[in-house]
Amino acid sequence: MQRILSSQLTAQVGQTVRIAGHVHRRRLLRSVAFLIVRDAAGLAQVVVTDAAVRAAVAALPEETVVEVVGTVVANTAASAGVELTAPTVRPLGPPAAPPPFDLYRPTLTASLPTQLDHAPVALRHPTRSAALRISAAAVAGFRAALDARDFVEIQTPKVVASSTESGANVFALDWFGRPAYLAQSPQFYKQLMVGVFERVYEVGPVFRAEPHDTVRHLAQYTSLDAELGYVADHRDVMAVLRDTLAGMLDTVVDRAGAAVARLDVAVPRVPAEIPAVHFTEALRIAAAPADEPDLAPAHERALGEWARVEHGSDFLFVTGYPMAKRPFYTHPDPARPAYSNGFDLLFRGLELVTGGQRLHRHADYLAALAARGEPVEPYAGYVDAFRHGMPPHGGFAIGLERLVARLTGARNIREVAAFPRDLNRLTP
Amino acid sequence: MQRILSSQLTAQVGQTVRIAGHVHRRRLLRSVAFLIVRDAAGLAQVVVTDAAVRAAVAALPEETVVEVVGTVVANTAASAGVELTAPTVRPLGPPAAPPPFDLYRPTLTASLPTQLDHAPVALRHPTRSAALRISAAAVAGFRAALDARDFVEIQTPKVVASSTESGANVFALDWFGRPAYLAQSPQFYKQLMVGVFERVYEVGPVFRAEPHDTVRHLAQYTSLDAELGYVADHRDVMAVLRDTLAGMLDTVVDRAGAAVARLDVAVPRVPAEIPAVHFTEALRIAAAPADEPDLAPAHERALGEWARVEHGSDFLFVTGYPMAKRPFYTHPDPARPAYSNGFDLLFRGLELVTGGQRLHRHADYLAALAARGEPVEPYAGYVDAFRHGMPPHGGFAIGLERLVARLTGARNIREVAAFPRDLNRLTP
Repeated sequence: MQRILSSQLTAQVGQTVRIAGHVHRRRLLRSVAFLIVRDAAGLAQVVVTDAAVRAAVAALPEETVVEVVGTVVANTAASAGVELTAPTVRPLGPPAAPPPFDLYRPTLTASLPTQLDHAPVALRHPTRSAALRISAAAVAGFRAALDARDFVEIQTPKVVASSTESGANVFALDWFGRPAYLAQSPQFYKQLMVGVFERVYEVGPVFRAEPHDTVRHLAQYTSLDAELGYVADHRDVMAVLRDTLAGMLDTVVDRAGAAVARLDVAVPRVPAEIPAVHFTEALRIAAAPADEPDLAPAHERALGEWARVEHGSDFLFVTGYPMAKRPFYTHPDPARPAYSNGFDLLFRGLELVTGGQRLHRHADYLAALAARGEPVEPYAGYVDAFRHGMPPHGGFAIGLERLVARLTGARNIREVAAFPRDLNRLTP
Repeated sequence: MQRILSSQLTAQVGQTVRIAGHVHRRRLLRSVAFLIVRDAAGLAQVVVTDAAVRAAVAALPEETVVEVVGTVVANTAASAGVELTAPTVRPLGPPAAPPPFDLYRPTLTASLPTQLDHAPVALRHPTRSAALRISAAAVAGFRAALDARDFVEIQTPKVVASSTESGANVFALDWFGRPAYLAQSPQFYKQLMVGVFERVYEVGPVFRAEPHDTVRHLAQYTSLDAELGYVADHRDVMAVLRDTLAGMLDTVVDRAGAAVARLDVAVPRVPAEIPAVHFTEALRIAAAPADEPDLAPAHERALGEWARVEHGSDFLFVTGYPMAKRPFYTHPDPARPAYSNGFDLLFRGLELVTGGQRLHRHADYLAALAARGEPVEPYAGYVDAFRHGMPPHGGFAIGLERLVARLTGARNIREVAAFPRDLNRLTP
């Protein structure tokens, strides 16, 4: 008999079926016992009246993996409207040791550090797994949106000879006796691949040796990177980002609807045109001094609130960040060279995406590095490629965990990563 | 005027259009000049008769990025059946420096090391980019096949506290002052996630500090990993692998048809049931001594030939490898405990996929580690999870670059990786 999932039971009333899953909960009442089985699709209630089966169930602690064969009976009192009766129950492994916290309660009461220490078990809780389902759907939506726009997926090196984003916060390693670094982003590679495919994306891990323990930083996170050529300026990039984001959120609703409901997520609407303000205007809106070189978190929150009130939008582009605060490959605004063609996308007052137009002329790279007092040599393999013709281009990078955390209202980004890595955490 | 791609020209005869791309080739004849523009979709021929435009084209070396506005005219002599006439030509950047090898020739004549040294330019050649398009399609097919079977995509740590596959060939790094390693596979994590989602997959980089310089090993490659619970044994895993592989190859044909044609790839048919032989039988077929503990490359080639002749199949499963040669988490064959429920899939006589059933009982892990004289402590976070109930499960891992190399007939796996990493190569 083929195993079926708990979600398929309602279509099988009157039939004898086989299900399998973890023992989620047992309730041993005087005249009857209830066994709740948890599988990938949800929960199934099994009603036990036979004394021998009851004794067997009594000996199977929560989380033991079992197989149940029984008859499906409609029961409006059961949560799914059906339950299994006259069951045989067979363990598929030895009795489980009790987890360090109860998985059958509506919420996990253990502290986050305890959950993270026991991640393989904590992630079984529906609230934790729901966030990861949303994450998977968001990634699928990212790819689908870009596939539909003729982007080509790439895989690039995660170990590099020189740091990409800055000399700081980089993990060093020994590469067959040579110094090397974990890639902080696929930035250089995705740009170079614009010369090959015009439009590329990558989903992959990036590494930041963040020396601070904050609720919004991970030392490894999943970066959703896209880059496209033949743009007029950063606004072409922003338009693709807008459509990508809309595709991601649509896919989250389509493919992770149950998870969205479980976490009570209000999936935002992406406006047909996301409001955009220039950095100088953003400072004014946030009541920040006009000579601030960057936006502080409080400024971002004020801008998020402004976008909500003024535009009814959860999203806001801030464009034209000062060149001094952007990486050397950033393209300046031709009309105001102290400002960049770089942008951030704020989501509910938090920076979610960074992007912009990049330099595409070899001479501009040399000048940009010289202006910062940086040598060309560490970047030679990257910069040299621009001698051989590169189109105007730009791109963006979305932090997956940051997006999911903001979407689900998680207070700590570690809640939406399966096995987070940070300053203190290298296991499990 | 919106830019269009070269592939769209045939539908625009008589219209004035804008295209853009790299100068692929110029031919300056006495009475006319031809400019071939290469974009993401292919090549477009531009006919220049105007003296001033001709002079401009003469000053634009190959690989310069240009924009051309002209009138589309049917010409059966042109390769696409159309060409652009009466053009204006505008460079989108400075004149390009000549690449170190000609990109306009049908094949790249530079040696592979030279190509790899100049990867950003070499990958622009249609033969090199075609392999990467096939690679992208194969990954898309992997995901689609598993998505359709209720697998959930996961992202797992690439930096770990202890090595996964063996103590050897591991890259060490400094994690905030603590020793850490690059993950050799997502093996432990995908198993643990079976306890959460039952069926999971991951596409991501893995790292092997291979001390040898061979044509079939990379120090970083892309592993396509899947793992599923509630299996009877390894044969359930093999069935999913068969369907996944068929889906991947179908997607390669659907999404990368032009690349398949370009490289003259004979995409193999995956039999409805891939032939399978036990390891002991495989030794006999390969005329190897009966006490060989593993299959040598020559044995694999003989088996590939046997599968082709006897079964008309490019694929062959070898099951039941000796336990001594498989990792500690491998499930033994209950009937013959010296042999495993592990398998390899050979593709045209080369190992392409490794998989099998895994241990799922905590006590079995302790016994397996003890039998190998290995301490439990480095694996504690992994092994402990099995105390809390895990279903019988198994999985497999496909080496993406190895698959694409074998499919395209590449002699060296480095031909199908954008920026390969090996013993000697850390740039570009």
